[in-house]
Amino acid sequence: MRQVKFWQIKPEIRILGVDDGPFEAGYRGKVPLVGAVFRGGKWLDGVMITNVEKDGMDATERLIEMLTRSRHLGQLRVLMVDGITFAGFNVLDVREVFRKTGLPAIVVSREIPVMSDIRKALKNLPRWKERWEIIKAAAKIYPVKTQREGKPIYMQPVGIKREDAERIVRLSSTRSSVPEPLRVAHLIATAIVRGESHGRV
Amino acid sequence: MRQVKFWQIKPEIRILGVDDGPFEAGYRGKVPLVGAVFRGGKWLDGVMITNVEKDGMDATERLIEMLTRSRHLGQLRVLMVDGITFAGFNVLDVREVFRKTGLPAIVVSREIPVMSDIRKALKNLPRWKERWEIIKAAAKIYPVKTQREGKPIYMQPVGIKREDAERIVRLSSTRSSVPEPLRVAHLIATAIVRGESHGRV
Repeated sequence: MRQVKFWQIKPEIRILGVDDGPFEAGYRGKVPLVGAVFRGGKWLDGVMITNVEKDGMDATERLIEMLTRSRHLGQLRVLMVDGITFAGFNVLDVREVFRKTGLPAIVVSREIPVMSDIRKALKNLPRWKERWEIIKAAAKIYPVKTQREGKPIYMQPVGIKREDAERIVRLSSTRSSVPEPLRVAHLIATAIVRGESHGRV
Repeated sequence: MRQVKFWQIKPEIRILGVDDGPFEAGYRGKVPLVGAVFRGGKWLDGVMITNVEKDGMDATERLIEMLTRSRHLGQLRVLMVDGITFAGFNVLDVREVFRKTGLPAIVVSREIPVMSDIRKALKNLPRWKERWEIIKAAAKIYPVKTQREGKPIYMQPVGIKREDAERIVRLSSTRSSVPEPLRVAHLIATAIVRGESHGRV
């Protein structure tokens, strides 16, 4: 797969962090997907919001749509997502996003995804094989230590070299072990659904 | 009026910045009111969202409700608002908010409000005298220079000493002439209505 060349990575590189809102068990309908445009790990430069169907198949299309209509796209250098399933099991095809927008992606997770568990859960859904193929195709997973102390987080770089992705994950994790673009997207998405969100659990 | 005593002002003091979303001319209905919980001018610690009626009379009630149900309230030290009219001419009674929640307020504006213009505009609305009384009662206005270069912004401190308010406005204006809690509340509120927002105009 093609990889974007980063000649240099500025400390204020524009990153789009994307996360979804929460929902109650049994919920059906739309779930907000929030993008936080962040300058490195430093400050918020803009916000984007779209909606995806709970357990639907439209996350890839909605995200591409949100990106291509965005005035931010030309300045953005990398997409960061918190896992690749949104709104339940609405699977995001980050390779397709890369092909359509030119934006490489870093999939970040706090734990190593257990593939056999994911496969099992997917089997309850329509078009489960399609979803499974996208998840299986996701890139290799690497641990990254973002803080001197504590556990590493995990990343899957798509269309970007491992070393570049690692630097971006590290430089953007200024306030916690999670990169700021994702932490802030999470705070906004949660507040949209619940009316309020909090920095610490 | 009672004033809160600030024995010290930490650089990471918790500030709630509140701003409303935009609306088209002729719009009727609810407008989002967003609160950004900020640590000084440094980072976002949470988000709150409520709704107020365009040109309605419920901004004070909605904000007090949002604050009193919030898990953030105990940690918050000061409220910052971008002017005192939201969603058109829905006037916020910051004194009432202070009485009910104990949270002093700093009303921030980019320009000096022209009272005669406001009075004239208000006259087209139901209960205009009530609105006018609240606006008239708002505290004295002071210029503050938040950047070495450029124009000052203006603030009205309510329940807080001028010097304390000035320090808080300055320490929180880390990225532009506007305090971060307000800049970020604005970015979120705009994106909720328009689907996207931008750091610079």
